[in-house]
Amino acid sequence: MNSLHFTVETSSNGVIERDFTVGEIPGVLWSPASGADRAPLVLMGHGGGTHKRWPAMTGRARLLVTHGGFHVACIDAPGHGDRPRTAYDEQEVDAMLRARAAGEPEGPIVVRYNAHLAERAVPEWRATLDALQELPEIGAEGPVGYFGLNMGTATGVPFVASDPRITAAVLGLHWPDALAGTARQITVPVEFVMQWDDEHIPREAGLALFDAFASKEKTLHVNPGRHKELPRFEADSALRFFVRHLGRAVM
Amino acid sequence: MNSLHFTVETSSNGVIERDFTVGEIPGVLWSPASGADRAPLVLMGHGGGTHKRWPAMTGRARLLVTHGGFHVACIDAPGHGDRPRTAYDEQEVDAMLRARAAGEPEGPIVVRYNAHLAERAVPEWRATLDALQELPEIGAEGPVGYFGLNMGTATGVPFVASDPRITAAVLGLHWPDALAGTARQITVPVEFVMQWDDEHIPREAGLALFDAFASKEKTLHVNPGRHKELPRFEADSALRFFVRHLGRAVM
Repeated sequence: MNSLHFTVETSSNGVIERDFTVGEIPGVLWSPASGADRAPLVLMGHGGGTHKRWPAMTGRARLLVTHGGFHVACIDAPGHGDRPRTAYDEQEVDAMLRARAAGEPEGPIVVRYNAHLAERAVPEWRATLDALQELPEIGAEGPVGYFGLNMGTATGVPFVASDPRITAAVLGLHWPDALAGTARQITVPVEFVMQWDDEHIPREAGLALFDAFASKEKTLHVNPGRHKELPRFEADSALRFFVRHLGRAVM
Repeated sequence: MNSLHFTVETSSNGVIERDFTVGEIPGVLWSPASGADRAPLVLMGHGGGTHKRWPAMTGRARLLVTHGGFHVACIDAPGHGDRPRTAYDEQEVDAMLRARAAGEPEGPIVVRYNAHLAERAVPEWRATLDALQELPEIGAEGPVGYFGLNMGTATGVPFVASDPRITAAVLGLHWPDALAGTARQITVPVEFVMQWDDEHIPREAGLALFDAFASKEKTLHVNPGRHKELPRFEADSALRFFVRHLGRAVM
């Protein structure tokens, strides 16, 4: 198994930020400057076309560290951020861009490509979590949450379904096609977001994926607006969801 | 106009609780024991068959006062709590009980009766708010929220639509039939709850009422479970919604 190597460390406003690698996988770990010992861990999966330091990732990480007292980790997905693209990655990205330029639906391509990326990403998440739990300030006993929307949900659904270490998940903004069957195996608490006027994902599709989760506690949050217009206050809601389920009180 | 008369005052755990009347309308006003001056006001409409001191009302009131710093008021709806029932009230309650005993749908009766009660209740809410705003610790300038589910939404929708003093509302758990048209006139922020396995209100009906609000900011929260199984954490969410929109910080 690959262990975790820290490369760069910075600190600001009470948050320690450490770049790391686990084998070929680059990631970032955000931690509280104080009180980090054995704090719960939240893993964040980024969306398609973005990366581990996308503003939505760094913003959510700082919120979770500062107000939840959590460790938060994000890794670059295959073909994203600092990672090389395969010939297949290039082909699928080209197909998406062509569809967008032609005003054709991107959904079928995104569903297919995200399912492919998830197959590569899930073992990477498992290896990353193994390595993170070797760190003394995290450990193997603490609760672990997963927070990923869009492509982060395409990876998150099979990851959460197959890894019993994940005890709560915030997911959403995805089609059910490749995911609903796997979502039926998930029983941990889920908070699920969708956009009521999503130009890519029909309402029925979002509702169908929410419906699929077997979790006794699951909450759907619907807001008006297009695919990328998720209101900022949903990050606050995710914070409170993780505080409720991972067990660290709001400070 | 009727002014407000306080009758009984008690205080516990930092919350002052005062019974009042406005004309024939009995109510309760919960306020913070300190820092109450010009605090925002939240009006709570109770559900059908309950009253102003139903546990859900007192629990939400204490939460909003303690963690939001608000004044919170609830009045008995017509035909509920300490108020007399008319012959028509008796007739409709009997019709509901007969439907329930026969295992027939209660929805059509509830929709019809709630619409009738709302016509009586809206002017009472307006008079109560007039009187509450005469109190020096509340005043006429501060923001006002409305929080009412079930029958509290049947009254809340026409009240919020017609009274510009209400600037944010938490609503839900109702059919759209008598309300959707009026909901289309509402533009203030709304948080709307529905139960995914509601034995009385079909999913499409709940979604249709959410869809009707013209508010630019509106959020739907869906949870599994039957009509009366709304999770307790939705009250915490309502608190944060009111803090966000009525402007008092969480203490």
